[in-house]
Amino acid sequence: MRPTVALLTDFGGQDHYVGAVKGAVLAACGEATIVDIAHDIPAHDVDSAAFALAAAHRAFPAGTVFVAVVDPGVGSDRRGLAIEAAGYRFVGPDNGIFTLVLAEHPEARVHAITNAGLFRHEVSSTFHARDIFGPVAGYLAKGLPLDDVGPAAADPVRFPLEPVRELRPGEWQASVIHVDRFGNLTTNVTRRELDGILGVVGGDPTEIVVVVEGIVIPFVCAYADVPEGEACALAGSSGRLEVAVHKGNASRILGAGRGAPVRVRAVAPSGPGAVL
Amino acid sequence: MRPTVALLTDFGGQDHYVGAVKGAVLAACGEATIVDIAHDIPAHDVDSAAFALAAAHRAFPAGTVFVAVVDPGVGSDRRGLAIEAAGYRFVGPDNGIFTLVLAEHPEARVHAITNAGLFRHEVSSTFHARDIFGPVAGYLAKGLPLDDVGPAAADPVRFPLEPVRELRPGEWQASVIHVDRFGNLTTNVTRRELDGILGVVGGDPTEIVVVVEGIVIPFVCAYADVPEGEACALAGSSGRLEVAVHKGNASRILGAGRGAPVRVRAVAPSGPGAVL
Amino acid sequence: MRPTVALLTDFGGQDHYVGAVKGAVLAACGEATIVDIAHDIPAHDVDSAAFALAAAHRAFPAGTVFVAVVDPGVGSDRRGLAIEAAGYRFVGPDNGIFTLVLAEHPEARVHAITNAGLFRHEVSSTFHARDIFGPVAGYLAKGLPLDDVGPAAADPVRFPLEPVRELRPGEWQASVIHVDRFGNLTTNVTRRELDGILGVVGGDPTEIVVVVEGIVIPFVCAYADVPEGEACALAGSSGRLEVAVHKGNASRILGAGRGAPVRVRAVAPSGPGAVL
Repeated sequence: MRPTVALLTDFGGQDHYVGAVKGAVLAACGEATIVDIAHDIPAHDVDSAAFALAAAHRAFPAGTVFVAVVDPGVGSDRRGLAIEAAGYRFVGPDNGIFTLVLAEHPEARVHAITNAGLFRHEVSSTFHARDIFGPVAGYLAKGLPLDDVGPAAADPVRFPLEPVRELRPGEWQASVIHVDRFGNLTTNVTRRELDGILGVVGGDPTEIVVVVEGIVIPFVCAYADVPEGEACALAGSSGRLEVAVHKGNASRILGAGRGAPVRVRAVAPSGPGAVL
Repeated sequence: MRPTVALLTDFGGQDHYVGAVKGAVLAACGEATIVDIAHDIPAHDVDSAAFALAAAHRAFPAGTVFVAVVDPGVGSDRRGLAIEAAGYRFVGPDNGIFTLVLAEHPEARVHAITNAGLFRHEVSSTFHARDIFGPVAGYLAKGLPLDDVGPAAADPVRFPLEPVRELRPGEWQASVIHVDRFGNLTTNVTRRELDGILGVVGGDPTEIVVVVEGIVIPFVCAYADVPEGEACALAGSSGRLEVAVHKGNASRILGAGRGAPVRVRAVAPSGPGAVL
Repeated sequence: MRPTVALLTDFGGQDHYVGAVKGAVLAACGEATIVDIAHDIPAHDVDSAAFALAAAHRAFPAGTVFVAVVDPGVGSDRRGLAIEAAGYRFVGPDNGIFTLVLAEHPEARVHAITNAGLFRHEVSSTFHARDIFGPVAGYLAKGLPLDDVGPAAADPVRFPLEPVRELRPGEWQASVIHVDRFGNLTTNVTRRELDGILGVVGGDPTEIVVVVEGIVIPFVCAYADVPEGEACALAGSSGRLEVAVHKGNASRILGAGRGAPVRVRAVAPSGPGAVL
């Protein structure tokens, strides 16, 4: 099977940057299959990239090499990293972009990229995606062992991950960590946390509600479980608790963006929103 | 030859969705060549996707598998379809997205996707492109016969296609069905209908005009047949009658969008716009 | 190694155009690896495409075939070109899109595309990327010699390239030729010209400043050499003099776009901005 190199950046579609990275990958590994994950991550938005990388990577076959570059600190002394976890490899700047991947893979091996023999003949101070990360990804795709990119690196940069807090029995405080192009709100509530919450109500999803901007929203199984234009909460495709509007834009309709607080509440079977 | 899987969605470039679908295709068929048709179809705009799919597919070599997903009804009871026509395969939701492809290929074989053995280990209620359509496309690319995805399906959803109506001898009523990024207006007048209209005037394109928003527009062979900034009508690259402005944006300049009425008129050779 | 075909257009992500070109390439050369450079070049902006093509191409391995199509004159009598230089091939309209590539490769061989046997069975007047350039690129990727596309072509269209002018000893007049998605300003000052300027001040970059919209900007090595939010000038990744704001948008903050004048000044070591 030909090795896959998957790219995730904030380089957009109006400049040469995405193309130059691909050229650099192919110069190192001509047989690579290059696929784009996303290049319209908002400029400099490392959090969004961290979310997208974590949400996308598990769909790929083992052996895939990911290049994730949102890199406002390029040219400073921030390190470059190459990471191996669950058969995947990840290459990019050490600025928090791997926070969620590392949280999912505590066993990950993290190395600093220091082997200049792998770099482009000339390394600019502003475009390490082309000059360092692309070539390194190409060589990894070609079979280079992780150890050969540089030494093991301690303490990769990680964003603080806000935990879901239990406010009182049957009520939890969460928040929105991502808004997608459809306006769906993904929260910080992981599948395991959601399972814990559902366990409290005996596994019955109709016995929890989600409150966003004062609006009480039922927990359902699919968008279509509520009428068009109405809000619902469900286990999203990335595993996390998600708030959506059926065929509508939840972010706009609810007036909630990244960071917006979200309450999850167990309800008495008698009425929605009633606190236990 | 390696099998090609071509993707068309409204997933945009800021999220992980496009990447996850590619991962799912590659997990099923590592040797696939994946190419993007378009991912910035307006959110939930099934009509635009139907148009783009029909307009793009014939340029691809036989054997290509298309994944077309604009899927506001995901998680409801809408079916998933796999279609075979003219050596192509198409995979996506049964919501009208295949309307124009089916109109072009009346001989198409249409099957419902029901074989859960082909799906991702876990199927979400919100992301069938990753969990069902991507894997199925990968297996089809790998050689899976269409019959193995599920049973033949009757009555796939089709949008009503507004016909071109003859209002009186020498005058036809049509409408705009697509506006592209350049502002060019594609109409519902197919190549066959256009040939019929041209036949009425003896095949001479200078003897028909097109009227949009009250403006009489000459029928020409190429954009450059009118001065810069002026409107023209011609046989567009998708075969349909198209209205454009030479080096300008016809939609903006003429104030016409999708659904705008378009008149086609045969003219006396003596003057433009004169009704026969 | 499988041949790479790299695409650069203004076709955007909401229409079928990009997909159709890929289909046409694959129909001619099924084993090609197709990669996207950029498709969100502003509509009809040949200059931006010329810049992106020149900036991207050198990162690719020799043998790559580039299809560069921003083509407002499609259907007129403008020629189609196929160019060979430094092991690369380039295919697209003769409208100036190859200006910067030709400036970098004075030894380039330029041929007009006239061999209709290579074209799609039917050639539209509005979509030569699909009907001519895509197929020709596919055949070149497959090994077709350049001579077989058509005869050598004299005088390809080139934009006038504004030179950097020395106003007086130690002061040069330049201009912005590209603004990227981050708001970074790339100037017309090439690496060689920049080296010449640096030579005047004994190679010490701290002895030159750049003036944009009246603001005196220090010349540094990397964005991080100035505090966040402050402007700097440096040798950009494309080799040219670039003006940026550390973690900010220089175009917005400085109020400067394409065409904006830029002064480069040698300064006395004693103070920034002081004329020699």
